[in-house]
Amino acid sequence: MDLETPYLVFVGDAKDALAAKTGQGVVDWRPEAVVGQLRLPECRADLGVADMSIRQAVAAGARTLLIGVVNPGGVLPKHWQGLIVEALEAGLHVASGLHTALEGVPAIDEAARRSNRQLVEARRPVGPFPVASGRKRTGKRLLTVGTDCSVGKKYAALAIVRELVARNVAADFRATGQTGILIAGSGIPIDAVVADFAAGAVEALSPDNDPGHWDVVEGQGSLFHPSFAGVSLALLHGSQPDAVVVCHEPTRTTMRNVDVPIADIDAVIEQTIALGRLTNPAVRCVGIALNTSELDAASASHTIEQAHRRFGVPVCDPVRHGVEAIVDEMLA
Amino acid sequence: MDLETPYLVFVGDAKDALAAKTGQGVVDWRPEAVVGQLRLPECRADLGVADMSIRQAVAAGARTLLIGVVNPGGVLPKHWQGLIVEALEAGLHVASGLHTALEGVPAIDEAARRSNRQLVEARRPVGPFPVASGRKRTGKRLLTVGTDCSVGKKYAALAIVRELVARNVAADFRATGQTGILIAGSGIPIDAVVADFAAGAVEALSPDNDPGHWDVVEGQGSLFHPSFAGVSLALLHGSQPDAVVVCHEPTRTTMRNVDVPIADIDAVIEQTIALGRLTNPAVRCVGIALNTSELDAASASHTIEQAHRRFGVPVCDPVRHGVEAIVDEMLA
Repeated sequence: MDLETPYLVFVGDAKDALAAKTGQGVVDWRPEAVVGQLRLPECRADLGVADMSIRQAVAAGARTLLIGVVNPGGVLPKHWQGLIVEALEAGLHVASGLHTALEGVPAIDEAARRSNRQLVEARRPVGPFPVASGRKRTGKRLLTVGTDCSVGKKYAALAIVRELVARNVAADFRATGQTGILIAGSGIPIDAVVADFAAGAVEALSPDNDPGHWDVVEGQGSLFHPSFAGVSLALLHGSQPDAVVVCHEPTRTTMRNVDVPIADIDAVIEQTIALGRLTNPAVRCVGIALNTSELDAASASHTIEQAHRRFGVPVCDPVRHGVEAIVDEMLA
Repeated sequence: MDLETPYLVFVGDAKDALAAKTGQGVVDWRPEAVVGQLRLPECRADLGVADMSIRQAVAAGARTLLIGVVNPGGVLPKHWQGLIVEALEAGLHVASGLHTALEGVPAIDEAARRSNRQLVEARRPVGPFPVASGRKRTGKRLLTVGTDCSVGKKYAALAIVRELVARNVAADFRATGQTGILIAGSGIPIDAVVADFAAGAVEALSPDNDPGHWDVVEGQGSLFHPSFAGVSLALLHGSQPDAVVVCHEPTRTTMRNVDVPIADIDAVIEQTIALGRLTNPAVRCVGIALNTSELDAASASHTIEQAHRRFGVPVCDPVRHGVEAIVDEMLA
């Protein structure tokens, strides 16, 4: 899956900043790929980039309308249809991470055919994928893993890539979920791949590379999440990481959407190393990424210091403080 | 997925007994569901049941033609098409575990529509499936796990169900692969489910039941197989077993189709218990099933005795000696 940039980010009628987090992710992590935002009158979110009409965006060089807002259930509201059709007719491709397939909406599908524009469904994997071989590949890999879903694995991976690039280390972010794919412009939504081929899809996502090159693979779920642990294990085996970073949200007490206590950081480190050795005997934990967005500055610093003392590896909040110490350790 | 029985088992031109193992599995484990076999002149396999034409099978009450032979690549040879069309026209449904979809063959698809008969693809899951909840269900469950693929997990599970039923313990075999499904007449091919829903599909396969009832769930792959470990973990979490039986083939040295040494039995026990505790803290190993088909009687007995001394749990070859000791332990 490859997306043409730059994007006009559609924020629709997002009721708050959280609803626009896909668009915000793209603006935060790939600002050079964004020409502007398109907001409906009711929109309560602001990505902090220029407001543009479709016509203005096309004139500014936009290639793709990116749907950067999430609705409950991931459905496509009916009143967005006219605008998406207008974008296609103006010459833009349209990319979406919604559950609703764009091409399943007749008016949109017809407009895309008529205008010879692409409808890119970031949630639909483009196979076929091979069964994983387990063969060791050249180049280096880091995988972000989690104590739960939605703890900051994508942001940690993106921050590590940014820091590597700043240090002139060759590195690529490898997206494995729809938002990551829309940020990166390519990737494979691993959780939507047929189970038998999930590890093989990860192998395909991160092929042989130069010895000093790092692929930084976006993790999914958690080995301790009863809904998604199989996906997390396929990612671990397929990415055969040299380095893992454990991501954690320190105020959370139960796993998302299930009645299971959140996993301990040490259990996640231990299991990740034990299972990861199957495809890379040299796997090691190079740090912990704490998402301290729910804590004030003093509590955040205290929590980070405590974790550092307890686990003896670099601990950072990638958003608040960057990931310098983690990258020092991964390159050591 | 539910199949109408009894079956006429199509053995085609199977070049040896191994090629007919799906049909043999059905005859071995569900003889009451088989009216006879249909063999082409070149066939070198014999399931040991009556040879019948389609017409004779229909007269004997057959409801479904079951394709009980595997071809390299799981494709459907062209010269079988006429016979399958004839079966549909004679009033039989047709069930297949081949990769090739029956309905993808126009002549077969048209015959099925014309005759209003079903084409049952045992390798295609019939969803949608929920995301797994991790919620503890009522009733008891046993899962067979393995040191590798194709070590006897299905046969061990079937032998355990047979022994439970012989002891008047309520029990069901829960099939998770195409051959198991064709034997059981129902089930879900877990490895063909989209990764995000694999654990949820296992939950759906083995719902709440009476407190004394056992679901015996057919395992897939191995937690230590780099291609399929994610599938195995989804099965472990979704089936939330009270008991696991580790299946092993003692003469094998490397994992099937990959360049990885076969896992140790103790590592499989340890990891299965460690990871299985997430959805069932009471999970325990109740035995080891050794597939000694490559050993003579004396070596088989010696290997079983050694394993029993080393691991301190019941050890059986389910085919050679039955599974009494394992069932004693699971019911203890």
